Amino acid sequence: MISSEICRNIAVETESKILMLIIDGLGGLPMENGLTELEAAETPNLDEIAKAGAAGLNLPIATGVTPGSGPAHFSLFGYDPLKHDIGRGALAALGVGFDLKGGDVAARINFCTVDDNGNVADRRAGRISTEECTRLAGMLDEKIDMQGVEVSVIPVKEHRAVVIFRGAGLSERISDTDPQATGVPPKDAQATSADGEKTAQLANRFVGRAREILSSEDPANMVLLRGFAECPTLAPMREAYKLKTAAIATYPDYRGMAKVVGMDVIDTGTEIAEEIETLEKIWADYTFVFLHVKKTDSYGEDGNSEGKIHVIEEVDKLMPRIMALEPDVLIVTGDHSTPTQMKLHSYHPVPLMFHGEYVRRDGVEKFGETACAGGSLGILPGTEIMSLAMAFAGKLEKYGA
Amino acid sequence: MISSEICRNIAVETESKILMLIIDGLGGLPMENGLTELEAAETPNLDEIAKAGAAGLNLPIATGVTPGSGPAHFSLFGYDPLKHDIGRGALAALGVGFDLKGGDVAARINFCTVDDNGNVADRRAGRISTEECTRLAGMLDEKIDMQGVEVSVIPVKEHRAVVIFRGAGLSERISDTDPQATGVPPKDAQATSADGEKTAQLANRFVGRAREILSSEDPANMVLLRGFAECPTLAPMREAYKLKTAAIATYPDYRGMAKVVGMDVIDTGTEIAEEIETLEKIWADYTFVFLHVKKTDSYGEDGNSEGKIHVIEEVDKLMPRIMALEPDVLIVTGDHSTPTQMKLHSYHPVPLMFHGEYVRRDGVEKFGETACAGGSLGILPGTEIMSLAMAFAGKLEKYGA
Repeated sequence: MISSEICRNIAVETESKILMLIIDGLGGLPMENGLTELEAAETPNLDEIAKAGAAGLNLPIATGVTPGSGPAHFSLFGYDPLKHDIGRGALAALGVGFDLKGGDVAARINFCTVDDNGNVADRRAGRISTEECTRLAGMLDEKIDMQGVEVSVIPVKEHRAVVIFRGAGLSERISDTDPQATGVPPKDAQATSADGEKTAQLANRFVGRAREILSSEDPANMVLLRGFAECPTLAPMREAYKLKTAAIATYPDYRGMAKVVGMDVIDTGTEIAEEIETLEKIWADYTFVFLHVKKTDSYGEDGNSEGKIHVIEEVDKLMPRIMALEPDVLIVTGDHSTPTQMKLHSYHPVPLMFHGEYVRRDGVEKFGETACAGGSLGILPGTEIMSLAMAFAGKLEKYGA
Repeated sequence: MISSEICRNIAVETESKILMLIIDGLGGLPMENGLTELEAAETPNLDEIAKAGAAGLNLPIATGVTPGSGPAHFSLFGYDPLKHDIGRGALAALGVGFDLKGGDVAARINFCTVDDNGNVADRRAGRISTEECTRLAGMLDEKIDMQGVEVSVIPVKEHRAVVIFRGAGLSERISDTDPQATGVPPKDAQATSADGEKTAQLANRFVGRAREILSSEDPANMVLLRGFAECPTLAPMREAYKLKTAAIATYPDYRGMAKVVGMDVIDTGTEIAEEIETLEKIWADYTFVFLHVKKTDSYGEDGNSEGKIHVIEEVDKLMPRIMALEPDVLIVTGDHSTPTQMKLHSYHPVPLMFHGEYVRRDGVEKFGETACAGGSLGILPGTEIMSLAMAFAGKLEKYGA
């Protein structure tokens, strides 16, 4: 059962507090010594928590399915990741910290070069500098005005930017203008279903205006759009769970996804210790805090086992400060696995543990892949983590008489 | 998968026998000694069965969801507890042993006092005696006659009674007449959806007649109705499973719920030993018997660990008599957990075991929360217990060619 759906009718507001600690890309595969990074790391504090709590494996989306960051987090927050996808353009908008709202449609922009015949000569405009990108995006943002629809153009990096359309009746169901080839003209955006007509026209007007504005620029004299994506409209967590929610994350993508479900996003630093400091400051004001640690995933994608172990140990050393806050319910897991051997997100279920007064101990003695596989929570669908946390926190009423 | 739905097309009638032993509120949380009541109890017989059988945890409704008695039992019987709810009024009718049928609508009655202006002066009529309640309920039952709809009024206790309406096209979708306050008149029942119109009119006519009949009574001169609830219409177990089914339970609620799924409800005594005696008497005549032990739950709700342990040990001592009947499949579990620490039903999955010739042993050596969490059945949705029992009993045909 999807947590946000089942909790909606039985959640009650109470003062108990839930902390969700997400260690990104936490899960791994055995290294040559037979242990994963999590198993090899010195984690006396996490192990103590495992001993006192209940463990299992978090299955973010479905058996065998490797989650992207968007679906993985929606699942953790208890929304159906198969219904509420978040496409590339919307992720890019979140990634630059844009305050995306339900119904917004975003697309990725490539600044490109077209020749005199209007054919694409370079899909990346010679990878212009980020400064140049910023100047051009600023021009488009300022000069393009579409009646009734708000248009924002935000630079990302080098030739990449993002455009966000905000207005009524927009849809992501339109095709890319990027032909994915040179020597041919950019395509027109086309509706891929009837409800995309308005947005396709809008996108084509936007591209036409961009062509005019950029006509005297060199080499970035045109734009290509791809990955049109709506920001999903999700019931805010304060409605679905009756929680006062806050997010602490160092990377904009995760701050953005937290905003989509209505969390207050708290300013913090770039280090894990700074995130914990932020947590200590705001703890009194919220009943749910999502705390996101990024670098385990980054080292996983780099294939750097030592780096991943180091970050896990850094988290472990900070656990006493988290436990000192006495969360009524603590959840520790990752959004997905990122085995260093694969250098990619993977489909392997992720070590998971709960800690709290009403969490039934299950004899698991260590926080690691093998130990958690023997835990009492079994393989728990990620979408059910919030229900269980809400139950352990005493925030759910009895179902039926 | 919901057992009653999947079994319907593949069940075959055979002579093999299934015994479902439900120890109400069985699951618990560790006491100070680190053991739950079930783990602390001396249960050599249950442990022998665990050793020879397969164990797991029963998840009655969904992760984190605390089951009411109604949904918990429908789940055990293999009906979808999220579709087939049973509300307060219907439970009250079952609780007094009324032979409730699918489509009946029942509501709880409070005898109350209204003043000369028709405002509620006392919502409980000074808590009249049960004798007085019985006399007044009898008057209403005898004198109120509504064309085409059968009306039954049954006393419960003190100021409480229950009314059951039986007829075509009735609905539970109507509001209470109880204003939940004094100094204001009783409300009219109102349809909360279009299909409730007829029943709302009926309820208001009933209240009008009750007012006339009670007008000269003191202090109980009026009634308030609340908790209108339909008895769900469920395919009888004999159709869904091709089983000859009987229920043995000391409490009327459980006898009532068994009736809703078409079981024969057998008269029995108030003690567990008497229930076993009843079982021995009827065993030859049925292929499925539901045997319900109540007091584990009662002691759980009282926070009485010793009492709960004692009842579990009492059951254990009687197990040899059950095993002497040689059920082809034995199921032992609870409908939900009732930890003494919480004094309430809880969401914790419930120890579960199966015993029978075709049950694959899994090395679990003890019947208890921690041991069962390591069993081969994993966390089994309650709605799948019947399918598995039917399979172990050799009562399900192959699916597909």
